[in-house]
Order: sequence, then structure tokens, then C-alpha cells
Amino acid sequence: MYDKGLEIRTAVMGKAYVDKALSSNADDFGKPVQDYVTECAWGAVWGREGLSRKTRSMLNLAMISALNRPHELKVHVKGALNNGVTRDEIREVFLQVAIYCGVPAAVDSFRQAREVFKEIDQK
Amino acid sequence: MYDKGLEIRTAVMGKAYVDKALSSNADDFGKPVQDYVTECAWGAVWGREGLSRKTRSMLNLAMISALNRPHELKVHVKGALNNGVTRDEIREVFLQVAIYCGVPAAVDSFRQAREVFKEIDQK
Amino acid sequence: MYDKGLEIRTAVMGKAYVDKALSSNADDFGKPVQDYVTECAWGAVWGREGLSRKTRSMLNLAMISALNRPHELKVHVKGALNNGVTRDEIREVFLQVAIYCGVPAAVDSFRQAREVFKEIDQK
Amino acid sequence: MYDKGLEIRTAVMGKAYVDKALSSNADDFGKPVQDYVTECAWGAVWGREGLSRKTRSMLNLAMISALNRPHELKVHVKGALNNGVTRDEIREVFLQVAIYCGVPAAVDSFRQAREVFKEIDQK
Amino acid sequence: MYDKGLEIRTAVMGKAYVDKALSSNADDFGKPVQDYVTECAWGAVWGREGLSRKTRSMLNLAMISALNRPHELKVHVKGALNNGVTRDEIREVFLQVAIYCGVPAAVDSFRQAREVFKEIDQK
Amino acid sequence: MYDKGLEIRTAVMGKAYVDKALSSNADDFGKPVQDYVTECAWGAVWGREGLSRKTRSMLNLAMISALNRPHELKVHVKGALNNGVTRDEIREVFLQVAIYCGVPAAVDSFRQAREVFKEIDQK
Repeated sequence: MYDKGLEIRTAVMGKAYVDKALSSNADDFGKPVQDYVTECAWGAVWGREGLSRKTRSMLNLAMISALNRPHELKVHVKGALNNGVTRDEIREVFLQVAIYCGVPAAVDSFRQAREVFKEIDQK
Repeated sequence: MYDKGLEIRTAVMGKAYVDKALSSNADDFGKPVQDYVTECAWGAVWGREGLSRKTRSMLNLAMISALNRPHELKVHVKGALNNGVTRDEIREVFLQVAIYCGVPAAVDSFRQAREVFKEIDQK
Repeated sequence: MYDKGLEIRTAVMGKAYVDKALSSNADDFGKPVQDYVTECAWGAVWGREGLSRKTRSMLNLAMISALNRPHELKVHVKGALNNGVTRDEIREVFLQVAIYCGVPAAVDSFRQAREVFKEIDQK
Repeated sequence: MYDKGLEIRTAVMGKAYVDKALSSNADDFGKPVQDYVTECAWGAVWGREGLSRKTRSMLNLAMISALNRPHELKVHVKGALNNGVTRDEIREVFLQVAIYCGVPAAVDSFRQAREVFKEIDQK
Repeated sequence: MYDKGLEIRTAVMGKAYVDKALSSNADDFGKPVQDYVTECAWGAVWGREGLSRKTRSMLNLAMISALNRPHELKVHVKGALNNGVTRDEIREVFLQVAIYCGVPAAVDSFRQAREVFKEIDQK
Repeated sequence: MYDKGLEIRTAVMGKAYVDKALSSNADDFGKPVQDYVTECAWGAVWGREGLSRKTRSMLNLAMISALNRPHELKVHVKGALNNGVTRDEIREVFLQVAIYCGVPAAVDSFRQAREVFKEIDQK
């Protein structure tokens, strides 16, 4: 399950991101949660049939906007682009956030996504 | 925009539900928010191109689980089924809720969906 | 501070409500939190100059909608009416909730307020 | 990991509760999340050294109060009592909830705990 | 509705802020949410009779504290000052946040408001 | 109660932190909330018998993770270390956060704790 999770996590998030997450959490303090994330989140759930990775990415953008976690949101905006979610589709997800989670949640998510886009476009 | 919203809302939620929502909110107290929901949520956002109704329904199940609103969740489980989301796909959405929003959110959402399924199956 | 808090709490919430809250929490388990609520919430904050009770009630309706606590919301809808907030003003507060906290929060709050109104009108 | 989780879950929550949770979720819809809860929550985390079960129960009461999940809170109040948390200690946890999560969260948690106590005392 | 919303938004938030929000969101990605905010939030809700702008600003400070959105909170602290809410009244709102949303919410809101005050006082 | 609270707050948070909090909030705007925090949080609740300071610190780490308040979380990580919570125990608390509050909450809390550890280790 760990290997499957690591493969999917790397495919979605990129090798550079995953390498950094694992190497900076290789000690006793950080390793257990990284193992949990890799195995349970990426292996056991993302590894399931039944929903495409693209759909899973859109669900995450909506949920993480609702949960109000900007750092994770930016990481998952990148992952969503890697999974084939277009910028127009990200806009649609966040417009739906505006209605169901309220304007401040949407405005924050739009701003964070734009920061990711700028970073990508400057490369 | 109101007419477009009313048409989509009725298609997704069913005529019986919408008739009841509007008739029980026909007074000064309830009408403005119903107008807002019909126009802004169902007309202006659900009426947009760019994401299928099926995808929008799945986003709502994820978001409303995160937002912890059981009454609205049950309404949108019914809407999701009407939009072609299968019970297996609802399960996948809520498994993803387990990882990102935590076990209590997922357990609640599974229980509420099961109540909707029972109600439908008993008809 | 306790006496001041008890006086304000009784004026806003009604003697029947406060008597019941105190008598059903007169044991070791419930007394400390009731003392805290009476002294700190009702004495130390509601007892301050600087905002009218009517304004404080409206703030509570908005906050408790955001916090998603239906039981407390209904209690504070009654308190708001006692403090001179009209039903039309409660509607305005919850329309603002719709925009900033999202549609599910607003729909829930409208429904709970309507239940309070019905209960009052049936007396 | 599943067996270890099942053992701990049964020890904390009681055989009647776990049997019911598993039998009412033995179908395709409910089984995956029950497997996840048993393996990941009860096996992988509750099964770890490093914190006593009593401490883990108190953490849950605080977190689930903050997360606003009354159904799960009542389940974990029972579990906490099974793990040796006293009613006085539950009161202390919820007083701390009052300060850090606010009065409505605390009032809700005290009420739900009291319902559990009544149910137990009537047996 | 857009024109009415734009007028109110500019009156409350200031021309510099609104010009920047609109110009940096003039593309396909950002325009729809800005249109929604201007029309629905500022036109359809803020444009209603029934509550003064000053009261609406105070409701926002309370709600956005509860929603935990520091960026939007600072924007609305400025708006509140423009709508005639005094610094003493902002203090009262946030003391009420302390009681109902908890100490961490209040401490964050006080700190963010102070940053806004410093910025204004340095001009 | 204020004196008792000040003594406990200083013992847990350190004299430098408390002096700074009080001196930078000595004006009309900041003083009332500091008085409230010192008296009600630190005097009335932390000053109670019934739970050790170490346990209270762990409850706070769990609750403040759930509440999503990174600034306060870092302050209470320091306080927890002062109260004898080990880094291994902090890890256990945040693994439990992963299960009950979800992965984004846990990942954020681990990152913030690590920043506190680095700051301490560099001294």
C-alpha cells in the first residue's frame, strides 16, 4: 500500500515535492504522519477505482477551501493541474465555493490559485 | 436568471421539493433568501457551462460534509442521485472526506446518505 | 459580576429559561460552566457599555450561524426578539449570513428561526 | 492491523456498539469506511505507544467538541468513561472547550454528555 | 444591480481598493467571482434597506472572525471604520467573539485589527 | 483571580511572552481582552484542580489544531513543552488530529510545531 501510495503521490504532486516532504520529515517526529499520508491518503483512497484522479482533485479543491487550509490548497491546485483540471474548471469549483462556503472562502481560494498560476507561468 | 435557476433547481431537486420550499417561504421572511438561492446558486452558478451537473453534485457532497450541514447534505444526496451520481461514487466522495475532513465528518455523512437510500428504497 | 450577569441573562432570555438552565445544572457537573456563562458571558461582556443589547443580539445571530450551533441559535433568536430585534432585522442578518457563510448556513438559520416564530405564535 | 484495531475498538467502545456498526455497514456502501476506521483510526493510531488510552479519549472529547459532531461526541463520551476518564475530568475538558472554542460549543458538549450519563444511570 | 453594488462597494471599501480588486481580476479567471461579489454581496444584500451599513459592518467583523479569514477581516475592519464603527465598538465586537468563538479567534482578530490601525495611523 | 491567572500564564508561557502581550496591549483597545484571557482562561480554568497542566496543554494542541489557529498553536506548542509534554507526545497528539480532523489539519500542525522546535534548537 505504501508503494502504491508513493507512486500516485509522486504522479500527482511531482517528484520534487514528494522528495522534499519525505526528506524533511525523515526523523522520528515527521515520519509517522508522512507514512500515514502516503499509505492511507494516497494509497488506500486515491488508489481506489471508482473516481478519476481529475474528479478527486476537484473534490479536494472544494473541501480544502471549506476547511480553510491555504497551504494545502496551493499544493492541491498544483496537483489538480497535473491531473488535467483546467484553470477554467478550477474557477468553476471556486465559484461553487462562493455559493456554498461564502464569499471570504472563495476570495481566499481565488487569490491562492492565482499565486500558484503566477509561479508556474514565471518558470 | 430566476427562471433559469428555477428550471435547474427543479430538474435536480424534484418538483415536490421545490414547490414545498417556495410555498413554505412565500412570506416576507422567507422569500428573499429563496429568491437568492434560486437566482444566484441555481441560476448564476449551477447554470454555468464548464462543469457537468454530476460533477457539481459531487463537489457539493464534499463541501457540505466539510461544512457539517446534515439537513442540506441529505437534500444534496438526493440531488446527486438525480444527476447520475451512483451510490458507489457517493461512497468514494465520502471516503475522501474521511481522509481530508476526518473520521467524524465521514461517519456522519455515510449515516445521512444511508438514511436517504432507505427512504428511497422504501418507496 | 455574577449578580449583574444573572440580571442581564434573565432580562434577555426570560426567567423560565434561566431557572431551568440553572436548576438542571445545579450539580457538580453542570454548575461550573453555568457560573462561567453567567459571570463571563452575561456579566463581563453583555454587561459592558459600548454596544446596545440589540446590537449584541444581532452579532450573536450572525456568529452562531457561522459556528453552526442550532440549539444555541434558537435560544438567541428568542433573546434577540426580547432585545427588540424585529423579524425583518433577523431576516437581514441571515441574508448577510448567506453571502458570507454560504447558502447551507443561511438555509439552516432561516429554518430554525421560523421554528421559534411558530412556537411563539402558537402561544 | 485490522485485528489489532478491532480489539482496541471493542475494548474502548464495547462489543455491542462495534457489532452493530459492523453489521449495519457490511454492504459495499459501508464496509470500506468501517475498514478504514478500524485499521487506521483504531489500529494505526489508537494502537500506538506514547499516549495512554485515557489521554487519547480526552483529546477526542476536546477535538470532537471543536469539530461540532454531536453524534460522535456521545459515542466518545462512553468510550472515555470506559477508558477511565471520570465525569469530573470530562467536566474539566469541556470547561477548557468553553474558553478555547466558545460558550456554544461547551454548552452543547455538556448537554450531550449529560444525556449519555442519564442513559447509563438508568440501566 | 451591478452599478448599485459597485457604488456601495466603493463607498465602503474605498476607490483604491475596488480599482485594484477589479483590475487584478479582469481576466477570465477572476472576473466572474468579482461580478458575483459586486452584484450579489454589495448590490443585492448590502444594498437592501433594513439594516444600517454600520450594523452590517459589525455583523461582518463577528462572522469573519468566526469564519477565520484574516485577509478578509482586515479588509472589513477598514470598511467598518469607513462606515462609522469606532475602534471602541470594534473592541466590543471582538470581546463578544472571545466569549462565543473562543479565545484564539478573539486574539487573532484583535491582532489583525491592530495591524490595520497601525497602517492607518502611519499615513 | 487575575493574580492567580497571571502567575500560571507566566509559568506556562514564559515571562518574556507575557510581558510583551501585556505591554503591547496596555491601551484601551487591547487591555480588556488581555484581562479576560488572564482572569478567565488562565485563572478560572487553568487554575482549576482536576487536570494536570500537562494534560491541559495536550487538549489545547488538539483543539487549536481543530480550530485552525496557527499563531495560537505555536504559542501553545511552546507552553506544552514548558509543561513537560515531550516532542514525541506532541507527535502523538497530531497523529490523532490526522484521524479526527483530517490530513490538512495535521500537516499544518506538524509544520508549525517543527518551526517552534527549530527556533528553540537554534538558541
